[in-house]
Amino acid sequence: MSRVREIVLARPVAGPPVAADFEIVQRPTPAVDAGRLLVRSLYQSQDPYIGSRLRGRHMGEPAPAPGESLPGFCVGEVLESGDPAFEPGDRVVGEMGWVEVGLMPASGARKVAAGVPASAHLGVLGMPGLTAWAGVTQLAEVGPGDLVSVDAAAGPVGGTVGQLARLLGARAVGMARGEAKCALIRETYGFDAAVDLNRSDWIEAYTAETAPGPTVHFENVGLSVLMPAMQRLQNYGRVVLCGMAEHYHADTPPAQVPVGLIIGKRAAMMGLVVYDFYPRWEEWIALATPWIQEGRLAFVEDIAKGIEAAPAQFERLMRGENQGKALVQMSEA
Amino acid sequence: MSRVREIVLARPVAGPPVAADFEIVQRPTPAVDAGRLLVRSLYQSQDPYIGSRLRGRHMGEPAPAPGESLPGFCVGEVLESGDPAFEPGDRVVGEMGWVEVGLMPASGARKVAAGVPASAHLGVLGMPGLTAWAGVTQLAEVGPGDLVSVDAAAGPVGGTVGQLARLLGARAVGMARGEAKCALIRETYGFDAAVDLNRSDWIEAYTAETAPGPTVHFENVGLSVLMPAMQRLQNYGRVVLCGMAEHYHADTPPAQVPVGLIIGKRAAMMGLVVYDFYPRWEEWIALATPWIQEGRLAFVEDIAKGIEAAPAQFERLMRGENQGKALVQMSEA
Repeated sequence: MSRVREIVLARPVAGPPVAADFEIVQRPTPAVDAGRLLVRSLYQSQDPYIGSRLRGRHMGEPAPAPGESLPGFCVGEVLESGDPAFEPGDRVVGEMGWVEVGLMPASGARKVAAGVPASAHLGVLGMPGLTAWAGVTQLAEVGPGDLVSVDAAAGPVGGTVGQLARLLGARAVGMARGEAKCALIRETYGFDAAVDLNRSDWIEAYTAETAPGPTVHFENVGLSVLMPAMQRLQNYGRVVLCGMAEHYHADTPPAQVPVGLIIGKRAAMMGLVVYDFYPRWEEWIALATPWIQEGRLAFVEDIAKGIEAAPAQFERLMRGENQGKALVQMSEA
Repeated sequence: MSRVREIVLARPVAGPPVAADFEIVQRPTPAVDAGRLLVRSLYQSQDPYIGSRLRGRHMGEPAPAPGESLPGFCVGEVLESGDPAFEPGDRVVGEMGWVEVGLMPASGARKVAAGVPASAHLGVLGMPGLTAWAGVTQLAEVGPGDLVSVDAAAGPVGGTVGQLARLLGARAVGMARGEAKCALIRETYGFDAAVDLNRSDWIEAYTAETAPGPTVHFENVGLSVLMPAMQRLQNYGRVVLCGMAEHYHADTPPAQVPVGLIIGKRAAMMGLVVYDFYPRWEEWIALATPWIQEGRLAFVEDIAKGIEAAPAQFERLMRGENQGKALVQMSEA
C-alpha cells in the first residue's frame, strides 16, 4: 500500500506557531468515496488566519488536535473522482489538509481554468483576493475620488486591496514593515505611496500621504494602525475590519474601538468575513483574470519547496518575514 | 428699559447637572441688529446632549461659563426682525439661550408652518425627530422586513425611530426604564413590543421580542444596552451609534466596542451626528407633517411651565424622570 506524507501538529500550540509545533507523519493513501476527490497537491496555501485557527481563536472553530489534519486551501490535480462533476486530470482548488495527496470534499472544490498560474488560485484569485474584492467593492464600495489606506499591503489581501482601489479610480496608500515590502508595494503593485511601519515617524508619513485623510481604511493588522487611521479618517469614512493579526496571539484583552471616535468621525465600521462571499467567487475571478493577463493586477508569491519546508515557512509567515503570498510547493506541476 | 429673565449656570457643573447648578438672572431686553431676530420664546427645548455640553464633553464644544447663555433650541415669535426674510409675528425655531425674550441668529432660524403645535418643532419635527429620520432612513436604510430595536424609546428620538421604522414596514421593539414608559411605547407610540430595562430579566425579554435577532439597533444609551443588542444582532445587522447618555457623566474610561464582535457579526457600526443633516430638515418635516396630522406619528411632551421651572425640569431629564420630550413653556402662545 502506497503512503503519503502529511503535516500535522506535534503538540498543542501555546503561542505564535513555530516550526517545532509541526511534524510530518506518513499515512496510507486514502481511498476515494462518494462526494470526495483524491487530489495531488501542487501548492498549499499558508494564511495568517490559520495561525489563530491552530489556537482555537478563529470564528469559534476548534483548534485541530495533534495528529489531526490542518486547515487550509490547496490547488492540485484530481487523481480519482468520487463525484461525476470532476474527472482525473482536472485542476481544482479547495480545502484539504497539508498533505501531498489527500481527499478534498467535492462540494467545496472548484475547477480552475488555465490561463493564469494554478498557484494564483490561492492568492490573488483565491481567498485573499476574494477578501480584498468583498471589502473594496461590497462593503466599502470604493470608487473614483476615494483615498484608500490599507496595512499588511505587501501581502495578498492588502496588495490586492490597493491595486483594486486604483483600478476603480481611487488613490491607494499601503503600509507594511520594512523598506523591501514598501518597494514591492510601490513598484510591483503600483500603489500611489507606501509607508514603512518600522519608521518611528510613520504616522507623520501616513498623515502626509493620506491628506486630508483617508475616506476608506482597510484593516488587516490591529489597533496599532487602526487607531491612527481612524483619527485621520475623513467624516463619513468607511473602515473595513478584516483582520487583527497583531492580536491573534496576544494575551492582552480583546481589541476595542472607542464609540466616541466612531460617532465623531461619522464613520461606518464594517466587519468582513470572507466565507460569506464564497458563492460569489466566480465574479471576482471573472473580473480579475483579464487584469492579471493584461499585467494590470500583479501578485507576488513567496514559495517554499517541498512538504518538509512547510513548518519553517509557516513560522516565517507568523513572523511577517514572507514577501507576498506564502505558499508551499507540494509537488511539481 | 424693560428687562427679561434668563437661566444661566450659577457654577461650573461637576457631575450630572442638578437644579442648583442654575440660576435666573435679569438682563436688559437686547436691541435687534442686522442678521438677528428679537424672539419671544414660547417653548424651550431640553435635550440630553445639553447635559454633556454643560460639562464641555460634547463634540469638542466648550462648556458655557457661569453667567453665559446656555445652548439649546426654542420655538417662539418674532418681535422685531433684523433680517428681511422675517417679520414680526412669524413663528420661528432656532438656537437661543434659555431666555424669555432674546436674540436668535437669523441664519439658523426657520419659520414654522401652522398645522401642528409649535412645540412639535422642538421634538418630533425638531432635532430629535431629524436625528431619528437620519439614523433610520439615511444610515440604517430601514425597510420592510427589518427588525429594529431602540433604547430610550419613550423619548423623542427613540419614540420616533420606532414609529418611523414601523411606517417603513419594519418591526419595532423599544426599551426604556419602568412600566409607565413601556406603556407609552406600546400604547401611544404603537411599537410592536416594549422591554422594561428595570426588570432583572430584561435581556431574556429583549431576546424573545427581537428573535431571531435585530437587523438594526439604534443606540441612545450606552454599553449596558449596546453590548447585549450587538450580541443578538443578525449577521450584517446595522448599528446606529447616536447617543451614549449613560456615559456622558461617568468618570469611567470612554465606551468601547470589541472589534471581534463587529467582525463576527459582519456588523456595520455607524456614527450619527445630526448637525450634518440640518440642510435636509425640510425633507423630514414634509414627510412627517401629514403623518402627524393623520394621527399616524404620535409625540408625547413633558412640559414644565414658566422659566422658573427650567432648572428642576432639566434635573428631571438628567434623572430620566421625564415622560416624552422635555420642554419648558416660557410664555403663553
